[in-house]
Amino acid sequence: MELSSIYQPVQEDLEKIEDKLRSVSRVDSPQLSEMLEYSLKGDGKRIRPVLTLLSGKFCNYDLDSLLPMATATELLHTATLIHDDAIDNSPVRRSRPTVYKVWGEEKAILLGDYLFAEAGALTATTRNLRVIKLFANTLKAISSGELNQAFNAFNPEQSHQQYFQRVSKKTGALFCMATESGSVLSQAPEESIQILIEYAHNLGIAFQIVDDILDFIGTEEELGKPVGSDLTQGTLTLPAILLLEHYPRDNPVRRLFAKRDGQDDIKRAIELVRNSSIVQECYQIASDYCAKACQKLKLLPDNSSRQSLIALADFVISRKK
Amino acid sequence: MELSSIYQPVQEDLEKIEDKLRSVSRVDSPQLSEMLEYSLKGDGKRIRPVLTLLSGKFCNYDLDSLLPMATATELLHTATLIHDDAIDNSPVRRSRPTVYKVWGEEKAILLGDYLFAEAGALTATTRNLRVIKLFANTLKAISSGELNQAFNAFNPEQSHQQYFQRVSKKTGALFCMATESGSVLSQAPEESIQILIEYAHNLGIAFQIVDDILDFIGTEEELGKPVGSDLTQGTLTLPAILLLEHYPRDNPVRRLFAKRDGQDDIKRAIELVRNSSIVQECYQIASDYCAKACQKLKLLPDNSSRQSLIALADFVISRKK
Repeated sequence: MELSSIYQPVQEDLEKIEDKLRSVSRVDSPQLSEMLEYSLKGDGKRIRPVLTLLSGKFCNYDLDSLLPMATATELLHTATLIHDDAIDNSPVRRSRPTVYKVWGEEKAILLGDYLFAEAGALTATTRNLRVIKLFANTLKAISSGELNQAFNAFNPEQSHQQYFQRVSKKTGALFCMATESGSVLSQAPEESIQILIEYAHNLGIAFQIVDDILDFIGTEEELGKPVGSDLTQGTLTLPAILLLEHYPRDNPVRRLFAKRDGQDDIKRAIELVRNSSIVQECYQIASDYCAKACQKLKLLPDNSSRQSLIALADFVISRKK
Repeated sequence: MELSSIYQPVQEDLEKIEDKLRSVSRVDSPQLSEMLEYSLKGDGKRIRPVLTLLSGKFCNYDLDSLLPMATATELLHTATLIHDDAIDNSPVRRSRPTVYKVWGEEKAILLGDYLFAEAGALTATTRNLRVIKLFANTLKAISSGELNQAFNAFNPEQSHQQYFQRVSKKTGALFCMATESGSVLSQAPEESIQILIEYAHNLGIAFQIVDDILDFIGTEEELGKPVGSDLTQGTLTLPAILLLEHYPRDNPVRRLFAKRDGQDDIKRAIELVRNSSIVQECYQIASDYCAKACQKLKLLPDNSSRQSLIALADFVISRKK
């Protein structure tokens, strides 16, 4: 199913989020305004704010608080991407020069900080202490997950468990914040909230696994950024872990990580992953997470939003970018 | 007066803040724990958390909320320093290698993000929506002030007004958060809160002016970092603005900013500032801000904390580091 069909139950309100994102860009400083506009332009998938809105549909849908919260979710996501790109010196994302590339590292870092704050300020307007705490703890989880990744850069000795723990923090946490905040702000019963958190946790992990697969099998055009970026950064993702297990001797990932450089080894690793069962194995694991994500959704009220959550899990697997 | 005497009314609770800072370092990841411990070690002046505690002394001093808030204030300050050092590639601060120098840029940025989040989480424990919003807006003010500085790097055409506006955001805002949160959390009447905000606003500006003077007249030993850092970064501070006004032709700051490099011009600028009336003029302006800071304090209850706030204003002018 296309994203536009999946988003249908909240399409109108998603447009209000786009308005709200545009209003974030309207600040006194013309230079800051330009940076904000550039980084919040509507070329993301907006999965996270949609999750917030959809999760609000199982009890008292309260747009007044869901709108700032969903916007905060997208801002937090954008801020982490801006910092990631600055850290990785990434020149391109979504087929556009990154903030880092256009404005340089210093301004990219400060813009990320500004967006964290703006996201926090929007979260505070909900006046809901549970989601306010959730917001802070989510940023803690994301940054500690990213730090774990940084500490393990070019380390070939990492277990599946370490990978899943890290992914759960760096990607799962924000997915969880999206659904938990949406359901809390619509005063859903605690059982429904927990079901939606579990959904998002598993969906987030599946989403990241597919991201990590696409970094091996996608094209630069589809991805909007170079293929093999993870290996270049020394990040050991699931396909690379499986590659190390499948080829314990004379392995290009091991060579690359030992030298911390080498285009030939990156090419060789990509080739090996593409021409092996690894892609299929990874997709199987991602699908298992998606199945787990949807398992308990049937306990929620049967409505179009529940259908969308299920369809979103399919989309996460089938997406090409 | 020595800082230890000024801090006397809240000395015991300041030690509890040190405990709380140590407890922030106790996390599962040993690498993160080490970074946190290093960056939160007790070698800062702790002026901001002391301001929070002192400001709590004019009504119902509530340590249960003041303690996390004062700690959050120090964490937010630390996070911005860590990002500043990463941005400026500064190797030394407080006579120690910076987090950037020891762990590199990537981990420094992520540690800063983590500390923003930890500060936000501690602020949320106060369950006070006013201070929670204040926290987010303070981080917005600081980062937009820093962005303004970045946008104006190596620009010699900046007015006094621009300088004071920037300083008010990048330094004043956090001082204001410190006193506003302290007085709000102790349920002080709104007039007292406003007096303490105005105090902090003016004190913060004075503090930054003195910082900017010391960058010209201090010694590397006193400052714990190289002299002339601001000029190296292309930051136009008050002494440099006055230097441009005093010597409109053949000015080393103008030469330096045009070339964006030049140790000789930095040395010459420092010499000129030291051997002119500029230092005195800047100190006069800082003193005026301090006087303004203290002006309305007499309207607050007369207690030892009020004495400390007045003494702190003197300290801000007389400090050598």
